[in-house]
Amino acid sequence: MDVVLLGSGNVATHLAKALKAKGENVIQVYSQNLDNAKLLANELSAEAISNYTDLNNKADLYIISVKDDAIDEVAAQLKNVRGLVVHTSGTTDINVLSKHGLRSGVFYPLQTFSKGKSVSFDNIPLCIEAENETDLNKLEKLANTLSNKVYNLDGEKRKVLHLTAVFACNFPNHLYALAAKILDSNQLEFDILRPLIFETADKVMTNLPINVQTGPAVRDDQNTINKHLNMLNNLPELQDIYQTLSNSIKITHK
Amino acid sequence: MDVVLLGSGNVATHLAKALKAKGENVIQVYSQNLDNAKLLANELSAEAISNYTDLNNKADLYIISVKDDAIDEVAAQLKNVRGLVVHTSGTTDINVLSKHGLRSGVFYPLQTFSKGKSVSFDNIPLCIEAENETDLNKLEKLANTLSNKVYNLDGEKRKVLHLTAVFACNFPNHLYALAAKILDSNQLEFDILRPLIFETADKVMTNLPINVQTGPAVRDDQNTINKHLNMLNNLPELQDIYQTLSNSIKITHK
Repeated sequence: MDVVLLGSGNVATHLAKALKAKGENVIQVYSQNLDNAKLLANELSAEAISNYTDLNNKADLYIISVKDDAIDEVAAQLKNVRGLVVHTSGTTDINVLSKHGLRSGVFYPLQTFSKGKSVSFDNIPLCIEAENETDLNKLEKLANTLSNKVYNLDGEKRKVLHLTAVFACNFPNHLYALAAKILDSNQLEFDILRPLIFETADKVMTNLPINVQTGPAVRDDQNTINKHLNMLNNLPELQDIYQTLSNSIKITHK
Repeated sequence: MDVVLLGSGNVATHLAKALKAKGENVIQVYSQNLDNAKLLANELSAEAISNYTDLNNKADLYIISVKDDAIDEVAAQLKNVRGLVVHTSGTTDINVLSKHGLRSGVFYPLQTFSKGKSVSFDNIPLCIEAENETDLNKLEKLANTLSNKVYNLDGEKRKVLHLTAVFACNFPNHLYALAAKILDSNQLEFDILRPLIFETADKVMTNLPINVQTGPAVRDDQNTINKHLNMLNNLPELQDIYQTLSNSIKITHK
């Protein structure tokens, strides 16, 4: 399949590399910033472009992987292409593409991507959607070459998933960061928490989280909760988070 | 080493099994509830007791692994023993033991233990403390047979560690549970989030969390944040958590 990639951020980079590894032909990488386009295009042996007039309009698949608010304006530039156009956003409706008269789809990988850490796509849930069945089949076939977890989800369910990803990924990572901050101000290394963080995640690979909750709040151990709140007296923002989450644990488990 | 275990909960169970696996001799298991004592004692080929008068007072080590508020009353029953007495609590001062005139120490494993999931102790940080150096050396030697991460920490630092464990373990697990709840009410399976949860934890095994934060709040993507808050209109408790944590991410990264 000839693929044109529009975007050069973390999702675009990881997805393009995975596609190339599976034998797909990424022919162009577009970015507003030509240097960014080149950086990724070189790795893919693709052409870097920063001008829509240079766009190859005969590709089979166009992947728009840019910030959510920029999808609309990128899609508007693709009016002359006949291939399938997908975006990779968890929160954006498919009609941001279809309203421009494009053959439209969604290809949303549910994962957290960072520069410098490679991720195997085998286990990444790929959520796909398309306006017509032929295109859906095409996307499904492509997704199945990358991952063994392919989900055909409509926009509403995809948005729910994206919301839960904030709870299950972005917020936990921030809590790790807050823990690191407290440790640091007490001359303790973050490394000491790593086995606990790993085990906490590993435990819910085979259990439901509600069945393996531990800690003072689920035991209703107000004595320990009060000690912890006292220790956070000089960090009112963390005290607020501690209080809010402890209350929520108590409500959930009462 | 002859060891008497006082307690039969998750920490007591996992620790006693690990000690036995390393060749230590667990001779008695005490629990208020004789059935609970028997359940664990049988696995360890130890004697189950529920009466302090039956306590063997010639053991080398007594491990008190009970609820924090019960440590004091258990310690009060050990006045006739000459061995080293340790508790396994992250939040409790060593002097809850020493005030009873005992040879006192702390043996705190920084991990989340649940029934039915075995954990290798190799990587579990063991935080030790003792009143005199001979006993500290003894504890250190024992800890080193179980784990390659042994930390000699005073009570203040141990309490800090325990507080950060709430942020890095108990709160993330609860956020997983809230995500599961949202998914469930939308007929989506929790399983779809598992690869994301695993990767989020795995990423901080080699990175500091502040350097790998992703999501709408760190991008200051207020549009997506507002969409998410709207989706939580019927769940004000979750809306509050979303708002509180998103604000904290913004403040941290601005």
